[in-house]
Amino acid sequence: MPLEPLNTLSATKALTGLKRGEFTALDLTRACLERIHARDEQVKAWLSLDPNAEQEAAKITADDPRPLAGLPIGVKDVFDTHDLPTTYNSPIFANHQPTLDAAAVTMLRAAGAIIIGKTDTTEFAAAGRNAATGNPANLAHTPGGSSAGSAAAVADFHVPLALATQTGGSTIRPASFCGIFGMKPSYGLISTEGMKRYAPSFDTVGVYGRDITDLELAAKVFDLPAATQSGPFRLGISYTAHRAQLSPPMVALLDQIGELPMVSSFELPAEFAQLDDLHRAVMFAEGASTFLPLSRTASHELHQDFHARIQSRTADTMREAFIARDAMSRFANQLENMMISSGIDALIVPAAPGPAPLGRDPGNPIFNAMWTALQMPCVTLPVAKHAGLPMGIQIVGPRANDGQLLRIAGELFQHIKTQEHANAPI
Amino acid sequence: MPLEPLNTLSATKALTGLKRGEFTALDLTRACLERIHARDEQVKAWLSLDPNAEQEAAKITADDPRPLAGLPIGVKDVFDTHDLPTTYNSPIFANHQPTLDAAAVTMLRAAGAIIIGKTDTTEFAAAGRNAATGNPANLAHTPGGSSAGSAAAVADFHVPLALATQTGGSTIRPASFCGIFGMKPSYGLISTEGMKRYAPSFDTVGVYGRDITDLELAAKVFDLPAATQSGPFRLGISYTAHRAQLSPPMVALLDQIGELPMVSSFELPAEFAQLDDLHRAVMFAEGASTFLPLSRTASHELHQDFHARIQSRTADTMREAFIARDAMSRFANQLENMMISSGIDALIVPAAPGPAPLGRDPGNPIFNAMWTALQMPCVTLPVAKHAGLPMGIQIVGPRANDGQLLRIAGELFQHIKTQEHANAPI
Repeated sequence: MPLEPLNTLSATKALTGLKRGEFTALDLTRACLERIHARDEQVKAWLSLDPNAEQEAAKITADDPRPLAGLPIGVKDVFDTHDLPTTYNSPIFANHQPTLDAAAVTMLRAAGAIIIGKTDTTEFAAAGRNAATGNPANLAHTPGGSSAGSAAAVADFHVPLALATQTGGSTIRPASFCGIFGMKPSYGLISTEGMKRYAPSFDTVGVYGRDITDLELAAKVFDLPAATQSGPFRLGISYTAHRAQLSPPMVALLDQIGELPMVSSFELPAEFAQLDDLHRAVMFAEGASTFLPLSRTASHELHQDFHARIQSRTADTMREAFIARDAMSRFANQLENMMISSGIDALIVPAAPGPAPLGRDPGNPIFNAMWTALQMPCVTLPVAKHAGLPMGIQIVGPRANDGQLLRIAGELFQHIKTQEHANAPI
Repeated sequence: MPLEPLNTLSATKALTGLKRGEFTALDLTRACLERIHARDEQVKAWLSLDPNAEQEAAKITADDPRPLAGLPIGVKDVFDTHDLPTTYNSPIFANHQPTLDAAAVTMLRAAGAIIIGKTDTTEFAAAGRNAATGNPANLAHTPGGSSAGSAAAVADFHVPLALATQTGGSTIRPASFCGIFGMKPSYGLISTEGMKRYAPSFDTVGVYGRDITDLELAAKVFDLPAATQSGPFRLGISYTAHRAQLSPPMVALLDQIGELPMVSSFELPAEFAQLDDLHRAVMFAEGASTFLPLSRTASHELHQDFHARIQSRTADTMREAFIARDAMSRFANQLENMMISSGIDALIVPAAPGPAPLGRDPGNPIFNAMWTALQMPCVTLPVAKHAGLPMGIQIVGPRANDGQLLRIAGELFQHIKTQEHANAPI
């Protein structure tokens, strides 16, 4: 048995222990469930738990060749599961039981994962009701949203890995607030079928883990592009056009990261400041199409936030969404060309304005929406704390360079940790 | 009672008759079901029929204010229905019963429509197995695909209106082959939630009707942008870069249409010939993401066509899909600007290479894929016949100008019909 409690292991270490026969999938699952039972009355990460999880775990043997065999995983309650209710934290779907698993859940189960339960979320991963979840570092603060429950479950050692989603900043920001590793892959590479829809041009399956290797493990299961090269890399750092919205501790953190030898300052073109508005135009127009049917059948139970999106639907806003998508696509192309011509492999940008705010509001997506709009892969690295609350940095790479981004992010993280031991803590 | 049999009425005329109390929704539904029972052994449009359709129809009164109250509608069997199996014509889903209706079905039912049954389709509206459906004009020929059953059901007077889908040319081409009106709206304006996914950047809900007003009726229910102006309009006609693939009767038809007073020749930029390849790159890359989960869980029952798409998934093809989407978006912008600067309101282009070929192969999407790639709204007008087989022309407009496109298409159709009576038939 390892020295650490099983529920605190990273996914990678847990799988190594399982393969070596140091403990069984049942031991691991029980350790996770015990932690959940001990903590979830306070943390409120879970909306439902699979009563058959232990039974499933008991069937997994050490020689199971599947890449996630016996690994307990939490799933944000916006992914359909054939064996657990799927509520989207909406009163309309309080008793909804899908027939099929969502595509991402199908792939996790096919890889041998044990879906241990469903985690709390902002209503429809969009707006309306907040998740009840608290930030494990300080329960008075938000874990961020909309993937509140999944982020808190990984941060609080309930599960080593969890599924999140991102349409604005719902994967990256909670990872920063909770001090865990998070990844929003390039748009479209993981099927979002069976995941509750909000804005299809942005909706992306995200992943949380306790280590960069956990994210690499998930990337492999989801068949994301592998790393293309090893060797030295260069990073550009940008505070973005929204620097004024950064809190002092996040500015201080970025100032320190900017001093690293492989990091140079990178100036985003001034017109990239438009991306936040462009993102909102598309998200609202697509959200209007998405929630229109529910406004016809369940109007009274649909939160006012969604009615507001539908009311904003006009010929003009529909037209503007096309023009906005055209512009976002131009910006993505332009940024990738700039990165190539300046020899920059990835960007370092804020993952959030600062540490998690008080309350249950999911937080400001201003430092996430632009990268979601560009459909680029993003990774959160949990590198700092301020007043006991975690803070992350965000690493962004060119589209469909997910594996390479993970490699760079992993090496950067190692470098930062080494620095930290050698010098003052970041 | 009208002079024509009830099952042959357009949706618009049927609804007028219902509101006036000339016949009941039960009369109409029975007339449709009788036609289906008389013909479907040959036509094979339907995969399932709702045993409760008459019961539902009996509840509809003449003063029901809903826009489609009592109208029988056919639904392509790639849309989830809570009360009918949804097979996607795949052996994997032969017994699949969803819990919820697809978004488009939800909106039709909320408008009072009676979902009378599910129509045959190419497997997953993509590839693999063909629909068994025959072309009502000549059963030895294809009705086109993938929306084979829906097109044949409307053409053969089984239902006045039916739901289709388009990812390549699956709505527009079957309408041309079957001699009915068809519409593929601008991308993203009707939610595709609960519609089987293939390539999310293209997947679009389509509609078939017997008259342009039927399509306008559906456009209103789906809240598509309304017509913006009345008065004279100008159309540009193009044989596209793929003119060599047009059959002689389609060339002759376009030559005749080109003589109309409101039509002038329109030259597409030479580089638009790339759109077919760009479309395929995105469709295959997105299809690979879509069918990857099934290849892990139901490999043997998944048709080789889908395995081929998954095998083509590499870091390079994933990357190319982003670059292709960037290019398609540039082309759409460019074409809209060209149309504005040359005073052209919409384009006339072939809906198919010619009349429906023999057999059950769904037909060549070469004259559809480029417009799907541009995400522009497209309408088929059934204007001609050759050797007993129908042929349509396609009208294409700027994105989010759906209502205006329908108005122009309707007036053009009237003009062509008037010409036809005055002179030689087209």
